Amino acid sequence: MTRQELIQQIKQKRSFLCVGLDPDMEKIPSHLLRTEDPVFEFNKAIIDATHEYCVAYKPNSAFYEANGLKGWNSLSKTIAYLNLNYPDHFTIADAKRGDIGNTSAMYAKAFLQELNFDSITVAPYMGNDSVKPFLQVKNKWVILLALTSNEGAYDFQTRVISAEKETRKLYEQVLQTSKEWGTPENLMYVVGATKAEMLAEIRKIMPGHFLLVPGVGAQGGSLADVCKYGMNKDCGLLINSSRGILYAGKGEDFADKAKEEAKIIREEMKAYLDKAGI
Amino acid sequence: MTRQELIQQIKQKRSFLCVGLDPDMEKIPSHLLRTEDPVFEFNKAIIDATHEYCVAYKPNSAFYEANGLKGWNSLSKTIAYLNLNYPDHFTIADAKRGDIGNTSAMYAKAFLQELNFDSITVAPYMGNDSVKPFLQVKNKWVILLALTSNEGAYDFQTRVISAEKETRKLYEQVLQTSKEWGTPENLMYVVGATKAEMLAEIRKIMPGHFLLVPGVGAQGGSLADVCKYGMNKDCGLLINSSRGILYAGKGEDFADKAKEEAKIIREEMKAYLDKAGI
Repeated sequence: MTRQELIQQIKQKRSFLCVGLDPDMEKIPSHLLRTEDPVFEFNKAIIDATHEYCVAYKPNSAFYEANGLKGWNSLSKTIAYLNLNYPDHFTIADAKRGDIGNTSAMYAKAFLQELNFDSITVAPYMGNDSVKPFLQVKNKWVILLALTSNEGAYDFQTRVISAEKETRKLYEQVLQTSKEWGTPENLMYVVGATKAEMLAEIRKIMPGHFLLVPGVGAQGGSLADVCKYGMNKDCGLLINSSRGILYAGKGEDFADKAKEEAKIIREEMKAYLDKAGI
Repeated sequence: MTRQELIQQIKQKRSFLCVGLDPDMEKIPSHLLRTEDPVFEFNKAIIDATHEYCVAYKPNSAFYEANGLKGWNSLSKTIAYLNLNYPDHFTIADAKRGDIGNTSAMYAKAFLQELNFDSITVAPYMGNDSVKPFLQVKNKWVILLALTSNEGAYDFQTRVISAEKETRKLYEQVLQTSKEWGTPENLMYVVGATKAEMLAEIRKIMPGHFLLVPGVGAQGGSLADVCKYGMNKDCGLLINSSRGILYAGKGEDFADKAKEEAKIIREEMKAYLDKAGI
């Protein structure tokens, strides 16, 4: 999916919601556990219920790998289902991969070619040759971790480092250095909603790039603050909610509850888009 | 496997070699491609041929995920084969994972419990709560990326950051901060052989921890330099070779060639252990 197509979807649906597909076997409604592939059945129901209110889906690979071979199969079926039935939705493999060049190329093959996701999240620690093999896949995206939503982000990401003329935080250096590796057409960044006030500084370095923002909902980030500091003229935001939508209901009506929750978030997003004239 | 058991293995085998199991479908000998699971057959032959000369095996998850479901099956079979037949070998899931706490816990389940590896490589960028779920699994190890073997290591890892009283490089800060998270009994570090001269500095911060050292062989690192700067009184090193051993031969005798190559490295390692009185 191109940047322009993504913007078009946001404008049409009046939403920049990304639904995180993190199916936890201990939280999936019990009636699904009797099916052959509870994870896929859960995802399918969530997708069918929420698709009109969101523009993206983001399965996190950890929740599939935890179920071994069966889990990888659920992931394959989920992305195939999305690509077949909802080709207008942007898909994100939240895999946080990154390795030396020939190895990153294998991960790129796995997620962007074989599974055919639109994008993959990548960890920046190993630098340019660990990221570039992903950027080399045509019509696909890298979403690079910059400032994550968790407490541990303060261990290294916000450390002050010495730059040429000024001091800079590590995550700012990650943005500064990596923006030369790709373009706003194939590179986005992860910035946690729990650190929304830092978005203003980030937008000075990265005015045009899309930002994938986790941490709204269960993790406590504020949608209002993220929009205030992070929205640009094309919206430029994909805001993820996982647990808040997936586990809005615990019974057989879980998909209806998820739909209601997604709709509430979409209504709020619509207001911010209207207000910004997008 | 405990630290003491690992040291015992090194002393007995006179080797601190780790064989990286990175089976590339384009490099696997062609006669294996006719078998049902070429990757597993390749690994099995490599393991059987090299086990007396090494103390550890390290499959990199990228090379399995690139083959999708079939690849994950090959990985499962490989670790099961190792655990059943060579329980004295230390096993490393080279997965470079790391995510927010509840997600890292899922990766820990996948690799340390379900697949039952002794250890997993973890990326430090997301900080303490992304690493701790792995450390909480009893009798298992985290191998944290510190200074990697690739060119991109110079993008961020060697950046000078501001610390309390002194300046420090990012990877040194990673060592300094993270050593409080675990102990030399459950925490190792990845330090690339291509930056062997930095090992002397690293040993000042981390005298006791084991270091997993990739980059000898195809990537150009020197075994002599790594031993000179990185060995401690318990050896404290696991030196990985992947491509140099796996693809030493291209024909039906690939396992014999791999054995010869592993034996050559072991002979060199034996000399360094003898010299150090270990």
